[in-house]
Amino acid sequence: MASDSTAYAPTPRTRVRRLSQRGSYDRALVHSVLDEALVCHVGFVHEGQPYVMPTAFARLGETLYVHGAVANRMLGALSGADSICVTVTLLDGLVLARSAFHHSMNYRSVVALGPAREVTDETEKRRAFDALVERCAPGRSREARAANPSELRGTRVFAIELLEVSAKTRQGPPLDDESDLAQPCWAGVIPLALERGTPVPDVPRDQR
Amino acid sequence: MASDSTAYAPTPRTRVRRLSQRGSYDRALVHSVLDEALVCHVGFVHEGQPYVMPTAFARLGETLYVHGAVANRMLGALSGADSICVTVTLLDGLVLARSAFHHSMNYRSVVALGPAREVTDETEKRRAFDALVERCAPGRSREARAANPSELRGTRVFAIELLEVSAKTRQGPPLDDESDLAQPCWAGVIPLALERGTPVPDVPRDQR
Repeated sequence: MASDSTAYAPTPRTRVRRLSQRGSYDRALVHSVLDEALVCHVGFVHEGQPYVMPTAFARLGETLYVHGAVANRMLGALSGADSICVTVTLLDGLVLARSAFHHSMNYRSVVALGPAREVTDETEKRRAFDALVERCAPGRSREARAANPSELRGTRVFAIELLEVSAKTRQGPPLDDESDLAQPCWAGVIPLALERGTPVPDVPRDQR
Repeated sequence: MASDSTAYAPTPRTRVRRLSQRGSYDRALVHSVLDEALVCHVGFVHEGQPYVMPTAFARLGETLYVHGAVANRMLGALSGADSICVTVTLLDGLVLARSAFHHSMNYRSVVALGPAREVTDETEKRRAFDALVERCAPGRSREARAANPSELRGTRVFAIELLEVSAKTRQGPPLDDESDLAQPCWAGVIPLALERGTPVPDVPRDQR
């Protein structure tokens, strides 16, 4: 799987076939989608059944990290999996066309395939922890109390390397058929964005 | 799988085990999450590899519908799958605790398991089409030009029945340990919501 510094090499499993103009293996695009998203969806197989679980994640270089409690069922399944799938999706807009058929969404998504490796090295585990906390708010890993040894032991961290990766995006206006342009209905894009609201400070229980 | 009118019956595959107070089988909650979300993540297995693909969906009663082009690789895999997984996630907030360990997210998610059934009846297919378009904007299926026979033939629709379903939610403030309450850092929740921006009308190509 050769890959250069600017792009991942497509494989039969990651090659975007449908509407292939929407596919990309560009490393910078993949990184930007991964770094903007707050949640990924992890796909794994357990006793023949596929499961998809949402979870927080962080990217450090070419590695994605997810974590959870030792008793977490998903992490138990990951530890025995040959290959999992991590998918990240950002919704950018609703595309309202003049025909029902050409309605669509603007989005940016990334799919990464590969084995999940449990992180047992304590230095790497702490780096992954810090990166996960930094995703909530930059600088946060230095302000909050760091994980103590018992919390570290009670948490499993898994890594997936960014080797077999593709992005898929749709942007821009609806693409109606020429014959529909006179249809008397509004057409265009309604932008979507995950916005942060006004922070709500915590009031400790004994002060409520 | 007995289920009453207000709740789905948990099965060994959908029973929420970790932090089970976050789990729910309440039908109204499940429906509200499904009806607010614009995208689902479909998990399926192809040649032993799990894949997770984001796609639009719509709920009609106790049925979820997804659709795509006839050549769509995901739909090809669904048609041969014993059981798939459809997961829907809404992010409600970043939970910043006084300890790194208790950082979390507020969210509402639904996981549905079961076989995917291809919709071949034209009446049901049109109803599913309309429901998918209505998700973009209510009333839209009456305003836009309806799918013509060729567009209908070129699109496959799959249904998954809501039988084996669970919801999982976290809401509310950070839950710090008593011993961390004096930690001198901000703690609380940063609300998150997928907001719609100002609509951008389409300008047909010949008028640009």
